[in-house]
Amino acid sequence: MTAEEQPASQRQRTDPYVGQYAERAVGMVASEIRALFAVAARPEIVSLAGGSPYVAALPLDGVGDMIGQLIADRGEVALQYCTAQGDAGLRERICDVMTLEEIRAHPDEIVVTVGSQQALDLLTRIFIDPGDVILAEAPSYVGALGAFASYQATVVHVAMDEDGLIPEALEEAIGRTTAAGRRAKFLYTVPNFHNPAGVTLAAGRRHRILGICQRAGLLVVEDNPYGLLGFDAEPMRALRADDGEGVVYLGTFSKTFAAGVRVGWAVAPAAIRDKLILAAESAVLCHSSFSQLTVREYLTAQPWLEQVKDFRELYRERRDATLNALETMMPPGCHWTRPGGGFYVWLRLPDGVNAKAMLPRAISSRVAYVPGTGFYADGSGGQYARLCYSLPSPDRIREGIRRLASVIETEIELRDDFGPAPGIR
Amino acid sequence: MTAEEQPASQRQRTDPYVGQYAERAVGMVASEIRALFAVAARPEIVSLAGGSPYVAALPLDGVGDMIGQLIADRGEVALQYCTAQGDAGLRERICDVMTLEEIRAHPDEIVVTVGSQQALDLLTRIFIDPGDVILAEAPSYVGALGAFASYQATVVHVAMDEDGLIPEALEEAIGRTTAAGRRAKFLYTVPNFHNPAGVTLAAGRRHRILGICQRAGLLVVEDNPYGLLGFDAEPMRALRADDGEGVVYLGTFSKTFAAGVRVGWAVAPAAIRDKLILAAESAVLCHSSFSQLTVREYLTAQPWLEQVKDFRELYRERRDATLNALETMMPPGCHWTRPGGGFYVWLRLPDGVNAKAMLPRAISSRVAYVPGTGFYADGSGGQYARLCYSLPSPDRIREGIRRLASVIETEIELRDDFGPAPGIR
Repeated sequence: MTAEEQPASQRQRTDPYVGQYAERAVGMVASEIRALFAVAARPEIVSLAGGSPYVAALPLDGVGDMIGQLIADRGEVALQYCTAQGDAGLRERICDVMTLEEIRAHPDEIVVTVGSQQALDLLTRIFIDPGDVILAEAPSYVGALGAFASYQATVVHVAMDEDGLIPEALEEAIGRTTAAGRRAKFLYTVPNFHNPAGVTLAAGRRHRILGICQRAGLLVVEDNPYGLLGFDAEPMRALRADDGEGVVYLGTFSKTFAAGVRVGWAVAPAAIRDKLILAAESAVLCHSSFSQLTVREYLTAQPWLEQVKDFRELYRERRDATLNALETMMPPGCHWTRPGGGFYVWLRLPDGVNAKAMLPRAISSRVAYVPGTGFYADGSGGQYARLCYSLPSPDRIREGIRRLASVIETEIELRDDFGPAPGIR
Repeated sequence: MTAEEQPASQRQRTDPYVGQYAERAVGMVASEIRALFAVAARPEIVSLAGGSPYVAALPLDGVGDMIGQLIADRGEVALQYCTAQGDAGLRERICDVMTLEEIRAHPDEIVVTVGSQQALDLLTRIFIDPGDVILAEAPSYVGALGAFASYQATVVHVAMDEDGLIPEALEEAIGRTTAAGRRAKFLYTVPNFHNPAGVTLAAGRRHRILGICQRAGLLVVEDNPYGLLGFDAEPMRALRADDGEGVVYLGTFSKTFAAGVRVGWAVAPAAIRDKLILAAESAVLCHSSFSQLTVREYLTAQPWLEQVKDFRELYRERRDATLNALETMMPPGCHWTRPGGGFYVWLRLPDGVNAKAMLPRAISSRVAYVPGTGFYADGSGGQYARLCYSLPSPDRIREGIRRLASVIETEIELRDDFGPAPGIR
């Protein structure tokens, strides 16, 4: 048997560094669905898996001109190192952006990060010893769970409904954690147009959630990539707007401008901000001046808010195409959320149908999604699928959902003939 | 007493999150010399502290045009997410670059990182549990020591001389670590134009170092930011060229193109590469496509190797200005290295003169450097200063060293009047 013929689990034994890795890295192995996603990138497949913004809607010629001029005029700064906290001019612009969600922040309170993902990584780095508890919605953003796992956190999920995080469930989870002799280090929440659940924390719940966390001395990490991408109303007031000392707010330009520049930020109380800066310096020395000055220039010289409105209209049309197609085509037993903004619909499959087991068959039928299991730290979520509508055109979305509906129908037949799919974890 | 009047150690007590940080973050406090460096950025001060490349030597108009065209033509890709491993086309170009140091690598072996710093962070993340040993030169790059400390590594320093790492000292350090019942996880080395020591690992020592590490089963991390910036000879053959399984090689475009794009890379054995990709995904999701495609285009469409030659000439002139000024102006008792490339001279001050204690007085005299203590994990190095000649003009270098010589002369007088400076650690 050659190496290629061996199953991956046996090939792994030939790694000469086995036994030398850190404890946190022992479980770092590529997920079994990763290989499928490489296939899902093929053009014949309708991918509802991604999570990528539709950057083709940007005025690329104009943005190109702007950047070319920036390098010609200020290349000495844009191509040089900067401070670990990030460009001061960009941090001023970020303060302006946050006023749309009623946050009054000072540029000193901001740390620029390599996307929000780096902010999640650095926060976990400074707060989490192995086994420490993080409270997070059920389901939660897969990238956050990945960062939490890489520092060996224990994630305790808190239930949501169509109005977002349930206050009573949060109180209960805090109580349960305390009763177990442990202390949660922070609550991680995506209050607006949740990834993957597509729901938004109701205005009436926001003060209650903050009050519960304040009483418990629990830091809130408010991750808000989609807040400006609401289809039906003005942006919600951020949690951070009502508690400057108890909330770390995370923002990003990945969805309002361009994911490829990797510019996000954290707004944090002074002591946490200081540690974030030191952790960022240790992680990457400093963020890219090139990206930061590009975003700063974009916010200063381009009609960025008009562009956000264009994105909103574009995504609204795709959301509508998604919901209409689901309504028309999905077989009985399917349920889904109706997002008021953002990128995602959270689809519950009929009882006995498992999204992970179904994925290879969906890809054979030329449609892809993300199985729900990735959004839970405890292996649950097998009955769910995340559908992302931001990238394909409305026609492609309809075609993708037509294919998906057909795959689910076949699964239902299989279930009825052979019994429910085993709970694959 | 107002908060502003309190010493930092007491102000820290008002941090409401004290007691909640991870163990690794408890010691994360800004160093006392950090505030001085903010001052050192003032234009009236000659900064020999930095470490920044002279990016003003780039043809900024041409680079700006190139990037503007890139966004207009391929903005859909350059402004979008990419894979955590990095852009495939860039990885091909990186293989071409490495042939200059006789490395034969396949693009699949490469992970693109946010500067070399992220590669250091990720390697430490996957290999180091708290207390694990890393062997590193004495002195070592301050950014590497920062990454190692953030994962609570124990750094064991290995002596160098003018020919770089001393093989006998390495053997001794490995033996000492083993005798203490511990196992070193890797050797961290900067073989070419060392930061901060300015020395290069002699060709005749390279096979011996590799042999020692192979026999001990010790992974080598070869960090090579300056390898193409030699003034007097062709680039040296990389350690990686002679051991594809035992060496992780780190490269960067920060010094050969632009620090502000934050594009570095790691070449690693397959199992380590796989873990690096997963760790990178957890840390930042993916690197910036915008930066990666910019570097790829620069390497493809611009005369990048001619530009490296221009940088070499420019830095050679500054190295010469530095060495001539030191020769002419330094008081007796000072010793320094004579780098054959790179950015740094390592200056030993007269006995009884402490570089850290002297720094505020140097800044008052409008010259800045980095005290040697930052380059040792054990608090030693107080008698040393790192001088970086890459950014100031030759005239400014001469003026800076004139000021520095005068400060040292005053320190010598103080020492002779009041006794040697206490060993500040």
